[in-house]
Amino acid sequence: MTAEFTKRLDELSGTVSRKLEDYMTKVLAETKGQRKVAEAMGYSLSAGGKRIRPVLAAEFCRICGGDAEAALPAACALEMIHTFSLIHDDLPCMDDDDMRRGKPSCHAAFGEAMALLAGDALLNYAYEVISGGDGLSAETKLALISELSKATGVNGMIGGQVIDTTFEGKMTEAELLNMYSMKTGALLKTACKMGCIAAGAGDEKIAAAELYAEKLGLAFQIIDDILDVTGDEKLLGKPIGSDSENDKTTYVTLNGTEKSRNAAEILTDEALNALEAFEDTQFLKELTLFLLKRDH
Amino acid sequence: MTAEFTKRLDELSGTVSRKLEDYMTKVLAETKGQRKVAEAMGYSLSAGGKRIRPVLAAEFCRICGGDAEAALPAACALEMIHTFSLIHDDLPCMDDDDMRRGKPSCHAAFGEAMALLAGDALLNYAYEVISGGDGLSAETKLALISELSKATGVNGMIGGQVIDTTFEGKMTEAELLNMYSMKTGALLKTACKMGCIAAGAGDEKIAAAELYAEKLGLAFQIIDDILDVTGDEKLLGKPIGSDSENDKTTYVTLNGTEKSRNAAEILTDEALNALEAFEDTQFLKELTLFLLKRDH
Repeated sequence: MTAEFTKRLDELSGTVSRKLEDYMTKVLAETKGQRKVAEAMGYSLSAGGKRIRPVLAAEFCRICGGDAEAALPAACALEMIHTFSLIHDDLPCMDDDDMRRGKPSCHAAFGEAMALLAGDALLNYAYEVISGGDGLSAETKLALISELSKATGVNGMIGGQVIDTTFEGKMTEAELLNMYSMKTGALLKTACKMGCIAAGAGDEKIAAAELYAEKLGLAFQIIDDILDVTGDEKLLGKPIGSDSENDKTTYVTLNGTEKSRNAAEILTDEALNALEAFEDTQFLKELTLFLLKRDH
Repeated sequence: MTAEFTKRLDELSGTVSRKLEDYMTKVLAETKGQRKVAEAMGYSLSAGGKRIRPVLAAEFCRICGGDAEAALPAACALEMIHTFSLIHDDLPCMDDDDMRRGKPSCHAAFGEAMALLAGDALLNYAYEVISGGDGLSAETKLALISELSKATGVNGMIGGQVIDTTFEGKMTEAELLNMYSMKTGALLKTACKMGCIAAGAGDEKIAAAELYAEKLGLAFQIIDDILDVTGDEKLLGKPIGSDSENDKTTYVTLNGTEKSRNAAEILTDEALNALEAFEDTQFLKELTLFLLKRDH
């Protein structure tokens, strides 16, 4: 990674994190007896990593000629939806994970009821912040809400989680890829699309952003599967080998590590190619490699 | 109740129920591996009673000169939010209720993970259906989403649930009334306001609708508290005495049954008076009495 890339990523992540803090400060200021749920929301939001989804939204907005500042509420909404999904996925009735990114998960820190409600509140707050944002027309904000709600719902992220939770037996590769495209792919794709929508981009740009995001999302998930077998627990902040322990179908259990690495390489190239539809993509190209050449 | 009122209420409730069925049919048609969550959503949505919140929204829209048909997606969104809250409130980590309206609650019927996800999906779908509705401007739909998200969130319904879940010791009357106004009042108030907003009503009408809804919501909750002491289990579809068993502060434990009945009477009169700001309120007046003179 170039120093310029790292600086820019830190700046963008920092802008998103500060805006998220602003939103949570606003919530906290208005709470009284319900303060604890705002603390639980803030706890999980502030445990975020590089803010990949918001950064993708802001950057696609910029390269489509839009105002990344005006897209910031939508970018934060993406992080709220992502965080809500992590909180609920960690709950005892789901994956029952007490650790998340090396820290106690939300229910481990705040109790199960509060984690449930904090997740609900974050999902809901996402729509509140988009509807209240400045600098975009009502039509554009509504298009962003429509896009985000479809990607989050039964035929997007939540649906993918349902399939992951309920599928019995071994998945075929087609079934696995479908689950990945819903559970993790939908929100990544929507992040890129929302950036384009906020900039008022045309259908061609949106289609190219979708293609990019599909390749990126799938490569990202395959690399996750590889790291679950070959990764370093300390860097990952979670135990490795959990997939095979849980007898889960992954890209690696279906295809082996070597073939999985090759697939990830090809998808990475395809993602980079999709960016050719845009100009000024140096940062996005480096971001793609940063996400896909990782060891944790 | 007049026969005309009963007929009209059944018609309005029926219209809402059919629209909700249409929405769920649409979801089901698109699902494959995640079908079970759509079934859980539909199960809880179809267990609904008289669709009070949607009926209030549709009727306030009508008396403000609006198109109740155009307000129908927003009306359905209110029922989705209400249903999501019931599903999550019933979960083992919350109230742990296996029965709801005389039927197994969502998690009792579909398992805890599926109930969690069905609630999430309903909360999310509420915003999808408003953003996708026909017949209202983008500005109006955005105002509806803004209003609904505020009423649902940390400083509304979810916040009230947090207070109800976490409050330790006995509440004062002020604390109890604040909790009621958030937990059950906020969504009722928003239902009335959303009807006005969908009709493009002015601030004066909206303020009158708010006043009506505040009185209605509080009276409704006090009557719930009275029925928990004096009600008929068969009519209520749930065990009576559960509040005192759980050592909960209610309006009745603070003030006794007699004073509670008087308070409900006064609030009912105040609600009816607030309707004087509108014309053609015969149905709403009868609805108010229907809700507040109930025995279950």
